[in-house]
Amino acid sequence: MGVSREGVVVLAGGTGGAKLARGMADAVGQELLTVIANTGDDIEIYGAYVSPDPDLISFWLADTIDERGWGLRGDTFEVMEGLRQLGVDVWFNLGDRDLAWCLERARMLGHGLSPTAALARLSEAIGVRARVLPMSDDPVRTWVHSASAGWCAFQEFMIRERATGQIEGLEFRGAEQAAPNADAIAAIAGARAIVIGPSNPLASIAPILAVPGFREALHDTDAPVVAVSPIVGGQVLKGPTASFMAFAALDCTADGVADFYGEMLDGIVADENVGRLATLQTDTRMDDPAARLRISEETLAFTDALRS
Amino acid sequence: MGVSREGVVVLAGGTGGAKLARGMADAVGQELLTVIANTGDDIEIYGAYVSPDPDLISFWLADTIDERGWGLRGDTFEVMEGLRQLGVDVWFNLGDRDLAWCLERARMLGHGLSPTAALARLSEAIGVRARVLPMSDDPVRTWVHSASAGWCAFQEFMIRERATGQIEGLEFRGAEQAAPNADAIAAIAGARAIVIGPSNPLASIAPILAVPGFREALHDTDAPVVAVSPIVGGQVLKGPTASFMAFAALDCTADGVADFYGEMLDGIVADENVGRLATLQTDTRMDDPAARLRISEETLAFTDALRS
Repeated sequence: MGVSREGVVVLAGGTGGAKLARGMADAVGQELLTVIANTGDDIEIYGAYVSPDPDLISFWLADTIDERGWGLRGDTFEVMEGLRQLGVDVWFNLGDRDLAWCLERARMLGHGLSPTAALARLSEAIGVRARVLPMSDDPVRTWVHSASAGWCAFQEFMIRERATGQIEGLEFRGAEQAAPNADAIAAIAGARAIVIGPSNPLASIAPILAVPGFREALHDTDAPVVAVSPIVGGQVLKGPTASFMAFAALDCTADGVADFYGEMLDGIVADENVGRLATLQTDTRMDDPAARLRISEETLAFTDALRS
Repeated sequence: MGVSREGVVVLAGGTGGAKLARGMADAVGQELLTVIANTGDDIEIYGAYVSPDPDLISFWLADTIDERGWGLRGDTFEVMEGLRQLGVDVWFNLGDRDLAWCLERARMLGHGLSPTAALARLSEAIGVRARVLPMSDDPVRTWVHSASAGWCAFQEFMIRERATGQIEGLEFRGAEQAAPNADAIAAIAGARAIVIGPSNPLASIAPILAVPGFREALHDTDAPVVAVSPIVGGQVLKGPTASFMAFAALDCTADGVADFYGEMLDGIVADENVGRLATLQTDTRMDDPAARLRISEETLAFTDALRS
């Protein structure tokens, strides 16, 4: 992939990034796709190691994502029901096959495999051929300080606190000491294009950028770097992006997204024009496979044009 | 329970001991029953802490044991199926609600609860009112050396090796360093009767006796100590008791069982007469609740007679 510069790299967090990755897989083929995934939301629970963003992306790429937006399609919840019957406060819901996936990862990690190697084995078992790379094999955890609940680990903020309350602080604990995923850095260096997915810039992409090495790699690469705005029709489609943007004193617009990424970007894909930056203005909704493919193809054409 | 000497103590391992405990619960009421359970078969797997004998006994006492002889009635196996689909060699089968039970125990142990306290909470949640006491809160592990497979942990010998091959060695690793369950020792001291269940003497009861303190407590108590023979009609009803008895150079008869327990016993309950020891000769099959209750009541009358 290095010399021919065919490879596409997507930086991704939650559902928006995963959908774009799925579209890119159709556009260039899974073999040419590398997705660098946020691991700041990871959580150890039920004896399992849950890595929500890498897993979400893997399930999307394997076409096994459930309609509800997380977990495996058609999964059952017998273990969670069993825990509830034992009086456990089950605040973090995990399907049975999802649990199997996360228990098997915990077992592999316990045997010394890296998170990257463990995810590669799991993903291969469900037919993913793209590379889904955790941003780091070292632990990084996103913590959120909200007016209502104080400091919470990300999943607790999202689920227990329902992402309510004004955000007053955001930390990516461990990021400064973490080493970036070497395969991810190499993929950025040798890519045809780098696309930052339409994920929450603060909660999903900032943790990746907080790991030393990624900003430098994105600066140094010859490949164009573009972001797909997660803001559609002036609205955030999913999740608490607006309150995170407000915390960072950014407009919840494509312009605010461009502000956040700053010098890193060669262009932006959005449904509104960002005057000071090369903009591909297009319908950025990704509701079906055709839309995901169209946006991916348009984005790649845009990056190719930026490069020439 | 101490002064009135109403309490009944059952020492138990697998299904035979659990069935007797269930009968005793009907005979004297769960509140007066203490079951001391073998923990030599415990295994940590799937991020869970599995304690087969204490769990089997708890499920029997809660009337939630499955027809297959282990696990919870009507349990599903979605997580195991998920693991298989990921390419995992699932040699140790565990239902989803059974897994929930064992994951919750692992969580409690991780938070510093003792195995005894963890089991008490779990058992209470499913309605068990008898006390089911792990023989020790310290780790003891039964290892079996077979001609065919060498040294195996007990579950591996039973499941992976299907308990085949001549047994050439048996070790209760950790037993010498283990402290006996203090509640169990107190229950023995203050009991109306101590009944060693019809469990495999070598694999299920010997681990309990290997923990320092139990032999002395059984010797010192004023309560009669009797064993119910696991050999029925000259046959072992379940499991590899015969090969364990052969390893210990014991006849696979009530006489051999009496030989194994030796001076510890004041009497034996069996379907054949053991001349040199007070014997309650009766039909020891426990196929239904009525039979389990009858044997329990006969055994208690026998121990009361031995005492007077």
